Amino acid sequence: MINKEDIQRQIIQAVETVKRTNPMAGSITNSVTINFVANAQLAVGGAAAMVYMPDEGEFLAKAGGATFINVGTLLPVYEQTLPCTAKVLHEAGKPWVLDPVAIGIGSLRTQLLQQFKEYKPSVIRGNASEIIALAGLWGLDGGTEVSNVRGVDSTDSVTASKAAAVALARCTGGAVAVSGKTDLITEGSTIAFSEGGSHFMEIITGAGCALGGVIAVYATTGSPFIAALTGTSIFNLAGARAENKADGPGSFQVHFLDELYKATSADIAGNPFIIEEV
Amino acid sequence: MINKEDIQRQIIQAVETVKRTNPMAGSITNSVTINFVANAQLAVGGAAAMVYMPDEGEFLAKAGGATFINVGTLLPVYEQTLPCTAKVLHEAGKPWVLDPVAIGIGSLRTQLLQQFKEYKPSVIRGNASEIIALAGLWGLDGGTEVSNVRGVDSTDSVTASKAAAVALARCTGGAVAVSGKTDLITEGSTIAFSEGGSHFMEIITGAGCALGGVIAVYATTGSPFIAALTGTSIFNLAGARAENKADGPGSFQVHFLDELYKATSADIAGNPFIIEEV
Amino acid sequence: MINKEDIQRQIIQAVETVKRTNPMAGSITNSVTINFVANAQLAVGGAAAMVYMPDEGEFLAKAGGATFINVGTLLPVYEQTLPCTAKVLHEAGKPWVLDPVAIGIGSLRTQLLQQFKEYKPSVIRGNASEIIALAGLWGLDGGTEVSNVRGVDSTDSVTASKAAAVALARCTGGAVAVSGKTDLITEGSTIAFSEGGSHFMEIITGAGCALGGVIAVYATTGSPFIAALTGTSIFNLAGARAENKADGPGSFQVHFLDELYKATSADIAGNPFIIEEV
Repeated sequence: MINKEDIQRQIIQAVETVKRTNPMAGSITNSVTINFVANAQLAVGGAAAMVYMPDEGEFLAKAGGATFINVGTLLPVYEQTLPCTAKVLHEAGKPWVLDPVAIGIGSLRTQLLQQFKEYKPSVIRGNASEIIALAGLWGLDGGTEVSNVRGVDSTDSVTASKAAAVALARCTGGAVAVSGKTDLITEGSTIAFSEGGSHFMEIITGAGCALGGVIAVYATTGSPFIAALTGTSIFNLAGARAENKADGPGSFQVHFLDELYKATSADIAGNPFIIEEV
Repeated sequence: MINKEDIQRQIIQAVETVKRTNPMAGSITNSVTINFVANAQLAVGGAAAMVYMPDEGEFLAKAGGATFINVGTLLPVYEQTLPCTAKVLHEAGKPWVLDPVAIGIGSLRTQLLQQFKEYKPSVIRGNASEIIALAGLWGLDGGTEVSNVRGVDSTDSVTASKAAAVALARCTGGAVAVSGKTDLITEGSTIAFSEGGSHFMEIITGAGCALGGVIAVYATTGSPFIAALTGTSIFNLAGARAENKADGPGSFQVHFLDELYKATSADIAGNPFIIEEV
Repeated sequence: MINKEDIQRQIIQAVETVKRTNPMAGSITNSVTINFVANAQLAVGGAAAMVYMPDEGEFLAKAGGATFINVGTLLPVYEQTLPCTAKVLHEAGKPWVLDPVAIGIGSLRTQLLQQFKEYKPSVIRGNASEIIALAGLWGLDGGTEVSNVRGVDSTDSVTASKAAAVALARCTGGAVAVSGKTDLITEGSTIAFSEGGSHFMEIITGAGCALGGVIAVYATTGSPFIAALTGTSIFNLAGARAENKADGPGSFQVHFLDELYKATSADIAGNPFIIEEV
């Protein structure tokens, strides 16, 4: 059984290793929030690079310590880029984070997300509706065939996604992070519930995407579960701190990046979470 | 004849309905300002989703309460995506907002903007030069065949675009919003002139694009004319308030999003405008 | 030999001409930082327009006073767009700025950067590793065949890129700007070293891209060398001023845009630099 103090030690180690080594985590991500993803990755101490072309995706997959794939705004070339990048990652045993944004919209998205089952993303990060829909698409427990995703927003609660999250983690052998009021992170046998954050994270675009990018940064050094929990913890910490200083969603974003940058490893490991066995 | 108090009641209703129901307005929009568009839509209480692929455009057209199409940075796939999305919107009777950014640049842009005449955008939002050029392209009164658009900037005054704006509104049966020092909004028989805003709105990128996205949010509940006037009013209000707090164009953008979020329905309906019959 | 006071007079003239005439500098640039590029260009007094399609690139090349080409996030259509735009620029004798971001990643990037040798960019701006790698790709002195670029980051020092920068400037007949702790700008016989800036410029995404866009704005009026030095000087000035006010990388970006906007021509010309003959 996983011990909370041990988890906190691993969080501290992941944060400090990233700050010391400035690891590169490349991304293929949507154009709406691509700038915010890169800035969040840099703020926590990582390095960012974004591409669209197939051979460039393969290059980043090999060169980076981990990779972030977010299917938010698909381009035609992604039909080639995403499977070949995911294949390289899987074959090289490199960690990668999948954000199945807007699952259920369009045929290419469905086809790509179906293919990713074979390439076993190390971390899957989404809102509850996305996690339930992905489990459904992959034919796993806790999933539903009909997506409740409304555009990019969730209509399900984090609690409702628990079985799907556990089933996805067991399928990939990695971890799953479900974002919501209380966030759920699991590697299939242990579940962490992380507290904090801010209501402003729903009123800005890209908090979820940026979290995926930051989890990829931590996945360059920590296990999928530790990376997912470390990313979620720093987001909950920085979100709560930024809300205290913000006058609205514009200033919230500015303070949020500042707080990501200023958070210490002890702060992040100390952000409240509880552990539960499945 | 439209009564000013009645207009203000409808503005209040549109603003409050949006804040209460968080309606989704999908967008196909340019990559320069796509983040600002989404954040502005969220700040006023709407929900955002952006796509590029043809079947995804059709999906959003059906799923959203209204849709925003901005031709700023065309991609090759838009040759398929934009006409099929606009066709779905028109056939389903769903409101949609067209921003004919940079009309006159390139053959695909001209071809697409020509096609849109058939699909009757509910609201057309542009600067004076864009409105005059679109009326010209559609063979309407007040238009000119040669565009005076310089890149994405206007070289004509709002007043000079009055005949073109009225002609476009009569052609579509919807509304037209012309952005400038004083903004002009018309549905073909009544014209509203809206005051406020800030000189900083010319020194940041995307004030016009974001306005189009926000008008789409209001078009999920109000008439095209009310949606265009409500969007214009909240932008003029938030712009003036943000200018008072800003030290330059960077801080202006931050305060502007905050003020969009904080503006009440009474504030927005109370932003100065005058009404004139054509 | 170039005289420092004469250089400062030319910097003042470039800054004031831009503020007075609001010149348009179009861009084909990456989606990660495209918004920041446009906002930086506007903040210094220029006008921005971004496109992807081949005929639109040609249009902007002809219509703008200068053009910025940044190969950061290549799309398939760039195989057509970039060479035809660069060809128009070269044949029309229009100034253009090349940012060879991430040189060495992918076959299309290599092919395009190779082709650009023929179209002689007026200013090449990059980090030390990119400048060395481009000189290597073009078969010039100071270059290396194997790129040390790690994603988008430099692993070489500015000093190490001196021979490559001089060779590139002599090859194009234009100027080269190498960004680093101390920035190097050369037109092949004179080198300026510009001081200032901020450590936060490494912790945000797009400082280099935005500098390329701003140099293009100044290239509409000044020589390539003066444009490169003026852009570098205002970035070093605004970076240092913004750092004094910033609490982290989020607030740094906001203050940085404000300071770009507020910098006077005398401030910019007065930013410390030294001159050295090759």
